[in-house]
Amino acid sequence: MKRTPEMTSVSSDWESFHATDISERLPFFAKDGRIYDCLFAQQFDRALLTHLFETADALRGLTATKEGMDYAGSLLSHARAMLYFVQPSTRTFLSFLNACHILGIRTSEIRDTSTSSEVKGESPEDTVRTFSSYVDMIIMRHPTPGFVEKTAWLMNRTNRPVPIINGGSGKDQHPTQALLDTYTLYRSFKGNMDNRKIAMVGDLKRGRTVRSLTYLMRNYRNITLYFVSPKQFRMEPDILDFLKRHDMPFIETEDFRSVMGEADAIYMTRIQDEHDKAGESRAVDYSPFHFRAEHLKLIGKNCVIMHPLPRRHEIEVTVDDDPRAVFWRQERNGMWARAALISYIFGVDGKIRKG
Amino acid sequence: MKRTPEMTSVSSDWESFHATDISERLPFFAKDGRIYDCLFAQQFDRALLTHLFETADALRGLTATKEGMDYAGSLLSHARAMLYFVQPSTRTFLSFLNACHILGIRTSEIRDTSTSSEVKGESPEDTVRTFSSYVDMIIMRHPTPGFVEKTAWLMNRTNRPVPIINGGSGKDQHPTQALLDTYTLYRSFKGNMDNRKIAMVGDLKRGRTVRSLTYLMRNYRNITLYFVSPKQFRMEPDILDFLKRHDMPFIETEDFRSVMGEADAIYMTRIQDEHDKAGESRAVDYSPFHFRAEHLKLIGKNCVIMHPLPRRHEIEVTVDDDPRAVFWRQERNGMWARAALISYIFGVDGKIRKG
Amino acid sequence: MKRTPEMTSVSSDWESFHATDISERLPFFAKDGRIYDCLFAQQFDRALLTHLFETADALRGLTATKEGMDYAGSLLSHARAMLYFVQPSTRTFLSFLNACHILGIRTSEIRDTSTSSEVKGESPEDTVRTFSSYVDMIIMRHPTPGFVEKTAWLMNRTNRPVPIINGGSGKDQHPTQALLDTYTLYRSFKGNMDNRKIAMVGDLKRGRTVRSLTYLMRNYRNITLYFVSPKQFRMEPDILDFLKRHDMPFIETEDFRSVMGEADAIYMTRIQDEHDKAGESRAVDYSPFHFRAEHLKLIGKNCVIMHPLPRRHEIEVTVDDDPRAVFWRQERNGMWARAALISYIFGVDGKIRKG
Repeated sequence: MKRTPEMTSVSSDWESFHATDISERLPFFAKDGRIYDCLFAQQFDRALLTHLFETADALRGLTATKEGMDYAGSLLSHARAMLYFVQPSTRTFLSFLNACHILGIRTSEIRDTSTSSEVKGESPEDTVRTFSSYVDMIIMRHPTPGFVEKTAWLMNRTNRPVPIINGGSGKDQHPTQALLDTYTLYRSFKGNMDNRKIAMVGDLKRGRTVRSLTYLMRNYRNITLYFVSPKQFRMEPDILDFLKRHDMPFIETEDFRSVMGEADAIYMTRIQDEHDKAGESRAVDYSPFHFRAEHLKLIGKNCVIMHPLPRRHEIEVTVDDDPRAVFWRQERNGMWARAALISYIFGVDGKIRKG
Repeated sequence: MKRTPEMTSVSSDWESFHATDISERLPFFAKDGRIYDCLFAQQFDRALLTHLFETADALRGLTATKEGMDYAGSLLSHARAMLYFVQPSTRTFLSFLNACHILGIRTSEIRDTSTSSEVKGESPEDTVRTFSSYVDMIIMRHPTPGFVEKTAWLMNRTNRPVPIINGGSGKDQHPTQALLDTYTLYRSFKGNMDNRKIAMVGDLKRGRTVRSLTYLMRNYRNITLYFVSPKQFRMEPDILDFLKRHDMPFIETEDFRSVMGEADAIYMTRIQDEHDKAGESRAVDYSPFHFRAEHLKLIGKNCVIMHPLPRRHEIEVTVDDDPRAVFWRQERNGMWARAALISYIFGVDGKIRKG
Repeated sequence: MKRTPEMTSVSSDWESFHATDISERLPFFAKDGRIYDCLFAQQFDRALLTHLFETADALRGLTATKEGMDYAGSLLSHARAMLYFVQPSTRTFLSFLNACHILGIRTSEIRDTSTSSEVKGESPEDTVRTFSSYVDMIIMRHPTPGFVEKTAWLMNRTNRPVPIINGGSGKDQHPTQALLDTYTLYRSFKGNMDNRKIAMVGDLKRGRTVRSLTYLMRNYRNITLYFVSPKQFRMEPDILDFLKRHDMPFIETEDFRSVMGEADAIYMTRIQDEHDKAGESRAVDYSPFHFRAEHLKLIGKNCVIMHPLPRRHEIEVTVDDDPRAVFWRQERNGMWARAALISYIFGVDGKIRKG
């Protein structure tokens, strides 16, 4: 199709919007002083994080009884959500789906585009707008960088926008993963987030979660970060620059053992070999970046071991039984943190009181 | 397997039933003076259309509040539906699914037969009967012509029939598409359906929606139809004969511009090149059958622009912002019209009152 | 990965557990005197079967009205279940799904592992533990023998176990199929289960359902079993030994007609040619093991004809209309028996009273 002036203007509008700094774009995704579309970790400040964590805690307390669960399930019983996951992610999908169900939201699922109208030549933007017609919120995971943000931007220009939540997209942001990781620290530290030493271990170059978590750590005071990785997979310079700009101390090392005794939290990650360009993972000995049962005696008695999962061999299975291994709780925290976020976006967070 | 006399008799019963005129078959799919299985656009007469549209409008009003939505969700909270979509159609699927959810119906989904028992040698009729065992209604889209009707016919001979709704099948009927198109006219015209001029534009030969919509227009008085298409894709003779038989005026033209100022509604359609036998679409210049932004000044101030979607390039994206572009509302109308239809089939339409 | 002593100990723990006799393993899957994980037909004794059947009957009575259905739907409205079906089975899947919905349980579905984290190198045990994080029960069908039991065993060692229900796995047990088959006999015999003659017909060697049903028949007094099969597909020796050990009479024959007049129930099965190693099914004339319309006059007036479905040609379609053909009711019984079982596992069976 020949591009007409009008169509070009839509595209160029988006391109010029997208080119502006994120801080200038954020107001476009807010409404009445609240997050409307949840797209970036940068949308969470300390006060909001604390509020969401308290809401998640309250929701857990509330739903410990049948009566409380039925009450929670009445809060958004009038709402319908679409989970539009065209990039595989069963874990995040299920976490969001059950977060919706806790609040009583009815759900529709797209987990594969092969059956959608995209095959009939429809633009991805039209497809998403179509799906939005039937629901009150879209939770979206999409492989194309920027697509989720563009969808939110487009929807906000229509006369029937719905909130869009970024469920993790390409190499883009995955804000609710950062939210649940921080919530896990918050619970592990009993709310005392300042003055902590956090070790991030493994493939820091290509892991999306450690990047987002680092951004969120800026919300707390006197955080020291240890970046423990093979030299091939060191944390990227943009993150290190970010830390320098904000006067946040960090230490890079290949010696995992040297930081074990220091850390308040150890955040393990797997090697991201799906991003290999020429088998570079095979050239790396990743075993020094494994956490083994024998290490349990080297870490502090309150130090917690985290992992975004899935794991391969970075953490020995027998470590799971140690109370400091919190990665299974971390997964569950994700469901509660997401439920809290959704309740907040719909403005029913104020109705959640500990049971 | 050798066919026994008994089996032959089932088949021949169906074949002789199916061979009778549609007007003779309709009573078999009704119950207590209502549609039981919704299979054909011919099941809708003017009074019923008006009733369904008023019900859909009332449901929208009712559900504008949380209390109203919770009330709507209680109407069929005891019912379970199966969406059996073995022909790809995310759009229609989601529209029906959310229509069910608005009424509180619990849903099961089959969107692919590859996992079903059909692979173990079961007949399609047994498969559907199995699925019907667990639910109170089946909404079905199936590629085999006549299959949906045959299923309804078979189920009605058992001691546990359930209503069957045709979700669009092969080149067969797609009655709820015709319903939502007419509902969109009804809303656009504020209920004044008579004395209208409606232009249908594009690939009229192979578009199912324009055929069904033409049938439904017979319910209204003094309707004039403009059929605007390339000469290769003119409306089929059977439809033109139908119009002549019922004294309904129509005009065929290739000149889209000439009718723009006349029409009360312009129904755009895409080229149906998936039905090409030898690339005949490529031989056609379809651009004269596009609606561009520059055309907005040529149409009447109350003229509405419709499209069954998905679109390719038939309507420029910037047209979307004009209040006369109602195709996005049309999609949403589908969900409400289907919810109204389902409430009617279950006999709870009388409980829907504007909130 | 090199196996460390700790990992080996988990594996060897499971292997030594799994090697013990089933009667010793059962207590590990029970809690507070009830089944917690439903894995084996051996978990059902006569008293429990009767209780579950009475519960299923009561649930049907209760749910005959909208009020009763809404009450049933409130019983487990606080619970969430995951249906993890990585082996194709639409029939069993839908039966369980709707059983959950009857009780108000919210459901998540995994019907295919290709999108799961298994592709990222996660162990199947971790995958299941992940999924369990979000829900209160898992209903699982998995192709690997022993996998469902191992999952239940592993989950019971964690600090957040959830009940696991075996939805049929490989050549393993399919306990709820045996439950629904026995429930169908119970309803057909109006609760009088003793002194019955039951014919099992077809591919007895490779059919899982006839094996499980035979086990459950031991719970009743004076049951005589007829095993009617081609000589290539006779019931396996382990089952015959089981019957001898428990003094249960049985007769093996190839002459279907000879037992038709004797049986109180005829349990038909299809040829299981998907288990063929070298096309052995094609060498067998299966037609003597078909039930044809002409046989209806040979069986007793209260004899019932069952089939686990799907069928191919073992039962002529015209037989369906005879009131003694109960296989369609058998399918529906499955949903109710499963709902009764789930209500029992969650301890809300006591709240189900006939409406």
